[in-house]
Amino acid sequence: MSFASDNWAGAAPEILEAIARANHGAAPGYGGDALTKKVETRFAEIFEKDCKVYFVATGGAANGLALSVMTPPYGMVLCHEESHVQMDECAGPEFFTGGAKLLPIVGADGKLTADAVRETIKGFPYRPPHGAPISALSITQGTECGTCYSVDELSAVCAAAHEAGLSVHMDGARFANAVAASGKSPADLTWKAGVDVLCFGGTKNGCIAAEAVVFFNPDKAKDFEFMRKRAGHLWSKMRFISAQFDAYLEDGLWLKLAAHANKMAQRLAAGLKEAGAEFLYPVGINELFVVLPEGAAPKLNEAGYLFYPWVTPGDPANGRAHRLICSFRTSEEEVDGFVEAVKNNSNRQ
Amino acid sequence: MSFASDNWAGAAPEILEAIARANHGAAPGYGGDALTKKVETRFAEIFEKDCKVYFVATGGAANGLALSVMTPPYGMVLCHEESHVQMDECAGPEFFTGGAKLLPIVGADGKLTADAVRETIKGFPYRPPHGAPISALSITQGTECGTCYSVDELSAVCAAAHEAGLSVHMDGARFANAVAASGKSPADLTWKAGVDVLCFGGTKNGCIAAEAVVFFNPDKAKDFEFMRKRAGHLWSKMRFISAQFDAYLEDGLWLKLAAHANKMAQRLAAGLKEAGAEFLYPVGINELFVVLPEGAAPKLNEAGYLFYPWVTPGDPANGRAHRLICSFRTSEEEVDGFVEAVKNNSNRQ
Amino acid sequence: MSFASDNWAGAAPEILEAIARANHGAAPGYGGDALTKKVETRFAEIFEKDCKVYFVATGGAANGLALSVMTPPYGMVLCHEESHVQMDECAGPEFFTGGAKLLPIVGADGKLTADAVRETIKGFPYRPPHGAPISALSITQGTECGTCYSVDELSAVCAAAHEAGLSVHMDGARFANAVAASGKSPADLTWKAGVDVLCFGGTKNGCIAAEAVVFFNPDKAKDFEFMRKRAGHLWSKMRFISAQFDAYLEDGLWLKLAAHANKMAQRLAAGLKEAGAEFLYPVGINELFVVLPEGAAPKLNEAGYLFYPWVTPGDPANGRAHRLICSFRTSEEEVDGFVEAVKNNSNRQ
Amino acid sequence: MSFASDNWAGAAPEILEAIARANHGAAPGYGGDALTKKVETRFAEIFEKDCKVYFVATGGAANGLALSVMTPPYGMVLCHEESHVQMDECAGPEFFTGGAKLLPIVGADGKLTADAVRETIKGFPYRPPHGAPISALSITQGTECGTCYSVDELSAVCAAAHEAGLSVHMDGARFANAVAASGKSPADLTWKAGVDVLCFGGTKNGCIAAEAVVFFNPDKAKDFEFMRKRAGHLWSKMRFISAQFDAYLEDGLWLKLAAHANKMAQRLAAGLKEAGAEFLYPVGINELFVVLPEGAAPKLNEAGYLFYPWVTPGDPANGRAHRLICSFRTSEEEVDGFVEAVKNNSNRQ
Repeated sequence: MSFASDNWAGAAPEILEAIARANHGAAPGYGGDALTKKVETRFAEIFEKDCKVYFVATGGAANGLALSVMTPPYGMVLCHEESHVQMDECAGPEFFTGGAKLLPIVGADGKLTADAVRETIKGFPYRPPHGAPISALSITQGTECGTCYSVDELSAVCAAAHEAGLSVHMDGARFANAVAASGKSPADLTWKAGVDVLCFGGTKNGCIAAEAVVFFNPDKAKDFEFMRKRAGHLWSKMRFISAQFDAYLEDGLWLKLAAHANKMAQRLAAGLKEAGAEFLYPVGINELFVVLPEGAAPKLNEAGYLFYPWVTPGDPANGRAHRLICSFRTSEEEVDGFVEAVKNNSNRQ
Repeated sequence: MSFASDNWAGAAPEILEAIARANHGAAPGYGGDALTKKVETRFAEIFEKDCKVYFVATGGAANGLALSVMTPPYGMVLCHEESHVQMDECAGPEFFTGGAKLLPIVGADGKLTADAVRETIKGFPYRPPHGAPISALSITQGTECGTCYSVDELSAVCAAAHEAGLSVHMDGARFANAVAASGKSPADLTWKAGVDVLCFGGTKNGCIAAEAVVFFNPDKAKDFEFMRKRAGHLWSKMRFISAQFDAYLEDGLWLKLAAHANKMAQRLAAGLKEAGAEFLYPVGINELFVVLPEGAAPKLNEAGYLFYPWVTPGDPANGRAHRLICSFRTSEEEVDGFVEAVKNNSNRQ
Repeated sequence: MSFASDNWAGAAPEILEAIARANHGAAPGYGGDALTKKVETRFAEIFEKDCKVYFVATGGAANGLALSVMTPPYGMVLCHEESHVQMDECAGPEFFTGGAKLLPIVGADGKLTADAVRETIKGFPYRPPHGAPISALSITQGTECGTCYSVDELSAVCAAAHEAGLSVHMDGARFANAVAASGKSPADLTWKAGVDVLCFGGTKNGCIAAEAVVFFNPDKAKDFEFMRKRAGHLWSKMRFISAQFDAYLEDGLWLKLAAHANKMAQRLAAGLKEAGAEFLYPVGINELFVVLPEGAAPKLNEAGYLFYPWVTPGDPANGRAHRLICSFRTSEEEVDGFVEAVKNNSNRQ
Repeated sequence: MSFASDNWAGAAPEILEAIARANHGAAPGYGGDALTKKVETRFAEIFEKDCKVYFVATGGAANGLALSVMTPPYGMVLCHEESHVQMDECAGPEFFTGGAKLLPIVGADGKLTADAVRETIKGFPYRPPHGAPISALSITQGTECGTCYSVDELSAVCAAAHEAGLSVHMDGARFANAVAASGKSPADLTWKAGVDVLCFGGTKNGCIAAEAVVFFNPDKAKDFEFMRKRAGHLWSKMRFISAQFDAYLEDGLWLKLAAHANKMAQRLAAGLKEAGAEFLYPVGINELFVVLPEGAAPKLNEAGYLFYPWVTPGDPANGRAHRLICSFRTSEEEVDGFVEAVKNNSNRQ
């Protein structure tokens, strides 16, 4: 009965089976094995484009390492003020990049608009060597607010970045949820819209620890191999990340798992709306940010339902808002039970 | 005829004379000389408190090194969104601190309020190890907008920091101007109000390259000596920075120079007001941020007057505002000539 | 037929079973789960001492993060010139520590002696702030040369470090092999001998990706939690590392696996000696460094036997030496087959 | 009566006069002034080659910043085990480069030979991404042992570096002394021999704080401007470094000052030889490393002569050796007085 986070959910059985299958005979370390090579090429098929792919175990590593080859250490990276890179990685991007600056930008529903990006860039004109030159834009799809950029929104925000010479990084910890929710192709939501580097998440969606950094322009990946190694993020037994992706990408498992989580979130949203909850943001993927009916939260916690309070810098809903997350494992029963419990525990009654 | 910056002004003659005087005989390197030791103790007198003092040559070094011993590399430093550490040091604080995060905060007239600091801290509750823990507050006195914190404002903002366990760093590149303008004592404007570490500027106010990092709590200075050395900021012939401070602090030279610059700024402000200029901020020290009468700027530049356009992220005055700075060397004639020229070159005529 | 590396060997079945067992229900992320807490306390039993334990996925992460809280960024870490931290982590320790210096020291058979450590320290007298002060000693057990420190050797080298105020880091990527080979207790080989922080390896010995950083003095671990997070080494689904250690430490599995690998190495050594091979170092654990009979290596490679040439800076055997590694999975048949092949493919015949 | 260091000597009068002369009127900050531009071009004349020149205040900054654009953060820099970058900058190069590794190499008389460089490179074959790839070679001219590379030695060691794709950095803190001693041209001792980047020292030879980083291939300087700024090494009143170089390079002042220091060192060496001192290294420039007659050192110190004991890692002369340095200001009387005092205070008498 946990709606605390998708990382509480454990792993999909297919993932563990693939790990077991990969545990066969000797295989070269550090990604020199056949399975890794095979899975790397799967990304080209899925994204309909030659690309360079590197596997790591955590989203923080993926984001930090991606940015480390996208900005000089004296550069500045634009990001949403609620983005994971800004809020939840304990200054990891600053560490990986050797001290690049992150500039948090405001934007409704966890999204940056082309206008906001252009306005920001105008406010930071190129002043070498005093101002840290803006080097990259980081966006998240699906966002930290549980919303998604449309293809048009993405294309517009990427265009605003590119016209100023910035590279575009996409934090795709919940990319699968965004693809599943939008019905668009992985290509449509990335390089076709202007994304240069995608951190493609598996961990939150049924893997145990599997993230891929995907460079749509292989030239940009030049130093990545070294940066990953010195940061301790190159697995010696790489096949055990590759195996996870092998299963994850097979027969659309990644999209099935994400679609299920999304569906549970929609069901939960519908139920909660009925129960009188208010929503901070539209529910686009598998996350809900809600103000529950007064008095409900503590009683739900007592009843064993797990979820976190949610604080957004400067938000008047602070102290009242909560985050609920559905995962590939969330069941209809859990959802319906929760909704029922909200109804029963609301002061409104 | 330059109002471009106080760093265009060269050095006060007393400073150069002191350098020449110090050039006498052999003296231990790296600050082991008698003059350095003497001048270091002068700070205790001026600030009415035992303190630990380190000399460096630039304000960027002073700020970066000070912050490097005030925050862990995974920490977060609150600062004004227009502060020098945020805008003008090319991600230097991130470099010196090993990757700490700077969080820019909005505030009128270049100042942070206690409320804004408290609100920000509330928006970033302690979430170890995900959120970078807030470790320090950086403020500037006089500010980058040419204003000053009052003693009450300072005390309030420092109290907001201390109650959350933060140390307070003060960028005092124009501290002399603030002291001169306020009539308050150096102690009142620093440790008595709650400042833990002051970067005390000399360069902008008549020195050639002299900044002092002043720790009011000597325990906090523990690693500074090593951090300064490895960053290449320990002068072998230290006596030539010390000599500058020797003269600068002698007979209140630092306050005389600053008072003059302030006075010229007031004269300039009065004249420009008359000439129809508008001011972005109150003129508190030696800097003016103005919207000149339409059409005046290019003609003034043509006539040989030097000053920079001013861009503030998100400011509607962008494209129309300029910054004018008076220095210890600015003369009444220059000021009056400029005002006259503005009047003559305004389209309003 | 691979003797290339123990990381080619895949995982022990017990490890995978434990992962599968742990995949049950929702569990808090980031190490807040019950299994992680349980396994952390297992270390106290095994080491007969309260200790603070942190899990990561790679040895490079373990070493770098451990050192990052054992030295200031301006410090110097003594290590063997052939140590993994010096040779094989792509300047990772320098990255994690924020720029601390590694000082490589010569020592026979991959080991540092107390005399060499004392002599080195004497050659680098404390010269603040010019010389980077020596802050820590890093040793490896079993060593990169496939040898082991005796308890007496360990105690002596740690004493030499402690008397100069250094902390002692032990890279224990093959610690299990050293314990199994020596018959000494984990406590004897670590804190009782003077080790302050141990990087306890699981990956090379049958785990898929599991390393534990063990602080015998919990106070020293102060910043570790933050350093691990910002470096992207905190797993959200931590239970899947913990599960590996759960199985690894259960019923002495770790020692059984290591003992087997060691035994295979002894069998291989005996056979190769007979076949005329020469050994660079005594065979103490599961690694052999050999000069094979002339002409044998290429033929063995052709026959499908995999192993790497071995280069030691300055070694006259360069170009002729090879490294052979046995793992928990190596069979007597493989060993005997290899020895046979060497005999058949030697030019001596 | 100080032979402690050339940085005890203060400044040559011509340097101070130039600073005073430069203190005239307003001048653009940060190196935009006419004097800076003029002096930058003087380097092209002196080195007979177009080059890109950047001024900083300390040798540690010059070396660290130069290396920061010559190596990736995961690279390895070869240097002499007694070099300043290795021994005396408190891990500064590791800081500036973002964590690159320094590899200390043994070499007689403070010099690296082409053979030693080749042997080292052979011992560290390219093993991406495990071994930190060797990216640069750093040499010092005149060396930390008071010796000089001949043009042939330089050419050979640079060739060994270039054939392996390394860039060559020269620490020229005492470059003037080397030029004066050798009678070779600045070009002969740098780019013609294969040096890519020279840190050209002024501070030890009569300036107050003036070092120039000279890129003989301007393309290599790409990021320097930003790296210097963020490290706090860009002077706002740059003209006051430029003025020092203006005087320093005028009429060969730099060579006159250095030649004098060298001559005093030769006179001192001759006298001490006569007095029974032994020398660790040939006296090539203005530094002497001596074992004084037994019992002399403490008596000389008592008599007011200042100089430092000298410790070389692993040297059997440790505890008996001292370093003596002559400067542009050392007089014949001081030298002769010291020699006399040695003779009078030797136990041999």
